[in-house]
Amino acid sequence: MKYLVGETEAGTAVFAINGDAAVNLTALDARVGNDLMGLINTPDLAASMSDAIAGAPSVPVASIVPALPVANPGTIICLGLNYIDHIKEGGYEVPEYPALFMRSKKSIMAAGAPMVRPTVSEKLDYEVELMVIVGKGGRHIAEEDALDHVFAYTVLNDGSVRDYQRKTHQWTPGKNFDNTGAIGPISVTPDELPVGAVGLKIESRVGDEILQSANTDDMMWSVAKTIALISVYTTLEPGDYIAMGTPPGVGHAKTPPRWLRPGETVDVEVEGIGICSSPIVDEKDFDAKVAAQ
Amino acid sequence: MKYLVGETEAGTAVFAINGDAAVNLTALDARVGNDLMGLINTPDLAASMSDAIAGAPSVPVASIVPALPVANPGTIICLGLNYIDHIKEGGYEVPEYPALFMRSKKSIMAAGAPMVRPTVSEKLDYEVELMVIVGKGGRHIAEEDALDHVFAYTVLNDGSVRDYQRKTHQWTPGKNFDNTGAIGPISVTPDELPVGAVGLKIESRVGDEILQSANTDDMMWSVAKTIALISVYTTLEPGDYIAMGTPPGVGHAKTPPRWLRPGETVDVEVEGIGICSSPIVDEKDFDAKVAAQ
Repeated sequence: MKYLVGETEAGTAVFAINGDAAVNLTALDARVGNDLMGLINTPDLAASMSDAIAGAPSVPVASIVPALPVANPGTIICLGLNYIDHIKEGGYEVPEYPALFMRSKKSIMAAGAPMVRPTVSEKLDYEVELMVIVGKGGRHIAEEDALDHVFAYTVLNDGSVRDYQRKTHQWTPGKNFDNTGAIGPISVTPDELPVGAVGLKIESRVGDEILQSANTDDMMWSVAKTIALISVYTTLEPGDYIAMGTPPGVGHAKTPPRWLRPGETVDVEVEGIGICSSPIVDEKDFDAKVAAQ
Repeated sequence: MKYLVGETEAGTAVFAINGDAAVNLTALDARVGNDLMGLINTPDLAASMSDAIAGAPSVPVASIVPALPVANPGTIICLGLNYIDHIKEGGYEVPEYPALFMRSKKSIMAAGAPMVRPTVSEKLDYEVELMVIVGKGGRHIAEEDALDHVFAYTVLNDGSVRDYQRKTHQWTPGKNFDNTGAIGPISVTPDELPVGAVGLKIESRVGDEILQSANTDDMMWSVAKTIALISVYTTLEPGDYIAMGTPPGVGHAKTPPRWLRPGETVDVEVEGIGICSSPIVDEKDFDAKVAAQ
């Protein structure tokens, strides 16, 4: 199943997507709720609605304004270095354990929403990533069971402010500017993708300019291995996000560097899942727009 | 004012502390709620209750089981290196910007609750820290206004699993084992402490063994400067926690290393605020206890 969480005149709802058609699941059954948590917490809910879905009216996908797949995640855990050629372009050693960091809820926003270039830096960079939405939670999850804990896959643009990322060895500030991490819009259940979401083309673009282009086959740590490793130290909970790292081609490694500029729209795509688009907006213009609302 | 959030037979409540006497504010006014968020969001609430508080019955502080001061913080931001002698003992360069990382909600627990030594490591270490509880939120907070954003100060034991902290340059795993960060029990409003909480003795102990002993005067980044720096990249929100870093004397820097062992109780104290005690419990015994409940 492909899901889109988005805003309608009646509020935020969960839609099932079939091509360009979107069926409002929340309207069919209020238990679905207004993000993916209803489906995550009630595994049989979507299956039990299949007859109703088949006969329901649909709206065009393009008419829906995307919202976050999970609005209030407990944790957003990000794997920093997972593609060999991205590790090399950043000047890092190939590690024997994943470099893990966290993003705050304030740093993320839905696909389509502005990605804000901060006043204090011009070094805003894109990073396309495969992202896992955790279904069943757990601790000490064995690698061979780990894929049972994936509810769906989605797309992340792990927007990074590079000078703040490297002010010290801890990347947290540069990875946590408000409104820099775009998630969505489509979430795809594992049955519709190759096992572990391998073999998928992964790309980022501004218009016709291809900035990153790789394949999820190149991930050093698989989704299953990553879930197992994270659950050694923390209990994964339903709705947690796990970001799987970015391939080579990021802006700070290009000569000259290729920073995102206000007025551009950056698209990040994972094959079989979808495209996450973010218009780049200067912080002062974003603040003025928010103030005017 | 000194506050203690804790459990009673009637549920979790907020208490005002005067010496050994605790007055149940939640029982006096339901708007207080069951953690500090009610008082944070209604700044005049405590003042408006002063007559009622003065005449109210009290219970002994020792009869209350502490809970987290803020149960569901949006963000827990930690300053890693803030005392020169701790930076040197860890083998780090003195940085020109604070090393910032985050803890997840799953990694923290109340004072008095078990601190869990994980199965995968014996390298569980203590870190006493001054901790800020954010009152008024904001972005781009000027250093000279920053202390107006402090609701209260409390105590953190930033329990760290050292081998996992240093598996890569990113400290996240070692700082985010479930149930390793103890917060509380007492939260003290700024009017009862020196401006910026400087000049306070800060210590950690196991029984009579003094492990860390320093003074908050030795912080390189003041509370005001830290709030200003963090708010450059993110919007601080009411109830966010900010940890101010630990002084020298941590276990991994001692010869031989001084790891915390199951059966011990570690006490961390900041003068004028209080003592945060944590019994150390092995993960397998903790899990067995949870399973039996």
